[in-house]
Amino acid sequence: MTRQPCACGIDVHAHVVPEHFPRYIGARMPASWPSMVPAHECHRHVMIADKVYRTVSDKCWSPSRRLADLPAMGVSQQVLSPMPELLSYWFEPADGQQLCRWLNNQTAAMVAEAPGTFIGLAAVPLQDIDLAIAELEHAMQVLGFAGVEIGSNVNGVPVGHKRFEPFFAACEALGAAVFVHALKPTGMDRLVGPASLQQVLAYPSDVGLAAASVITSNLLLRHPALRIAFSHGGGTLAMLLPRLQQGFGVFPALKEQLQASPAEQAAKLFFDTLVFDTTTLRHLVDRFGASQLMVGTDYPFNFHDRTPVARIEAAGFDDATVQQLVHGNAQRFLALDGVVA
Amino acid sequence: MTRQPCACGIDVHAHVVPEHFPRYIGARMPASWPSMVPAHECHRHVMIADKVYRTVSDKCWSPSRRLADLPAMGVSQQVLSPMPELLSYWFEPADGQQLCRWLNNQTAAMVAEAPGTFIGLAAVPLQDIDLAIAELEHAMQVLGFAGVEIGSNVNGVPVGHKRFEPFFAACEALGAAVFVHALKPTGMDRLVGPASLQQVLAYPSDVGLAAASVITSNLLLRHPALRIAFSHGGGTLAMLLPRLQQGFGVFPALKEQLQASPAEQAAKLFFDTLVFDTTTLRHLVDRFGASQLMVGTDYPFNFHDRTPVARIEAAGFDDATVQQLVHGNAQRFLALDGVVA
Repeated sequence: MTRQPCACGIDVHAHVVPEHFPRYIGARMPASWPSMVPAHECHRHVMIADKVYRTVSDKCWSPSRRLADLPAMGVSQQVLSPMPELLSYWFEPADGQQLCRWLNNQTAAMVAEAPGTFIGLAAVPLQDIDLAIAELEHAMQVLGFAGVEIGSNVNGVPVGHKRFEPFFAACEALGAAVFVHALKPTGMDRLVGPASLQQVLAYPSDVGLAAASVITSNLLLRHPALRIAFSHGGGTLAMLLPRLQQGFGVFPALKEQLQASPAEQAAKLFFDTLVFDTTTLRHLVDRFGASQLMVGTDYPFNFHDRTPVARIEAAGFDDATVQQLVHGNAQRFLALDGVVA
Repeated sequence: MTRQPCACGIDVHAHVVPEHFPRYIGARMPASWPSMVPAHECHRHVMIADKVYRTVSDKCWSPSRRLADLPAMGVSQQVLSPMPELLSYWFEPADGQQLCRWLNNQTAAMVAEAPGTFIGLAAVPLQDIDLAIAELEHAMQVLGFAGVEIGSNVNGVPVGHKRFEPFFAACEALGAAVFVHALKPTGMDRLVGPASLQQVLAYPSDVGLAAASVITSNLLLRHPALRIAFSHGGGTLAMLLPRLQQGFGVFPALKEQLQASPAEQAAKLFFDTLVFDTTTLRHLVDRFGASQLMVGTDYPFNFHDRTPVARIEAAGFDDATVQQLVHGNAQRFLALDGVVA
């Protein structure tokens, strides 16, 4: 019996670029304030610091274009988060807040075109914790978002650093799902080859270290109701975790630092399935558990997974695991339909 | 039927620290020239830049102490390489050469106590390619070593960088096995916790990026007879590789850069099994192939694998795979007994 392909996936990792950027309002425009210029048909160049940062299609901002693409991916609900470079943590806080507000309004407008199908994640100016919390409150309480996208680091400081403690406390209190995405990664001087290796190799390295920082800082022990997910299958974390677990048993300072074992803490983290490989997908389920993985695609960028649900369905999991990965875990992560993590 | 535990393992990843360091001979002693001071019974402090870099046991330099420990690990042959921090790529080249020569002579003296059981890997001053090649020739032709240990980067430059091309050509010509070990890793600013996280998290991250740099620079395509292995199970490479493979199909610049697919190039690399976890070990075999993995322990440091062979034997592999992992692949890597990779 051939199982009917599911079209019930929830994609937690899909990006938005607005059709336009606002005119800067302030005293001194940041050199990397973004703008748009026309490109080939249906495309625009995102200009940052007078260079083409990325050429993107109108799928980035058009609800109808996106809706048309969902069924072929097996996706029925898509979580919208900004293209991470736009998070702009390197701006002055007030400038960052201005751009984040624009992004959030654009996302909200897209969600309004297909509520229930599109789900919004906020951008917040994490270079200023108070402003970030205020913007998150606005996004959750006024715009009706499900949570927030944050970078794997903020100007080089990993998300597990104690300076972000009040922000995560606010996320927990507001019930905001936190999606951690690679950004301005470490290790750029270790790459040999074209610029795309930043996305290909350095992004997962930075995400892995960010996830490890959340474990070594005991974040989920202080905030047990916090729901936090990591992009790109957690990046390199799957390879770091067994070594961290062993180190926890060997180094007294690490034993003292961690208030629960790395394995126990990792079991509370969510991850997307964006690894482009069935063997690795199965390993992630072995490593992190069938209850913690959710569809992620990086739609609509070139480097996105076009068959995220089919890959899960073909991986040899039992039906219950397939349902969890395809939508059940995302429902918990996003607290949809009253489902609680 | 209980299978008799094997005591025929070849450990390719075990370290040496000499009992003494030489008096510096030169014009200006580097601030980090190492020295030894006594510690508790059977232990010494390795002093670097006036601080205790690591407290080590006499197993680091005593052949008899090491030989006594091998059977319990299931190991019959052990490859000796210097504690990586001693590679001292940050010294002036002549100073680096002086220290490498001392290390190599100490390793050679240990090998002479149990030839056939102990196998030497050289230290070479890779901050100067010509001096490095000369030291490698000495180690291979005079001291009878099997190859060389190098860092995952040399003062921040990953091993895949073109500047190392003449060195790898010499390794290939001399038949020297190359063992790449993590050193001065990237990502240190992404760690939240005690100093041991350098070894625990940043080491595998740096090794993974180093292995990727060898792939993206097509090293093995230019030097098909080169035998090169990566420490700590290749670090994070297992998680990077599927993404690199996908990126190769998506980004034209990456397609142009790589003269064979990442998967095809990765299939020629060797890795140790030092991952402390059976699930991960099985994944490495799935990912890299049963022909490319070899026992590695990090003996005699605290953070070493005490049951490397038993873990392989208990992982559920078929007998042929067990034999390959326990000693067959290492024989090829080291070109022992006329076995050719």
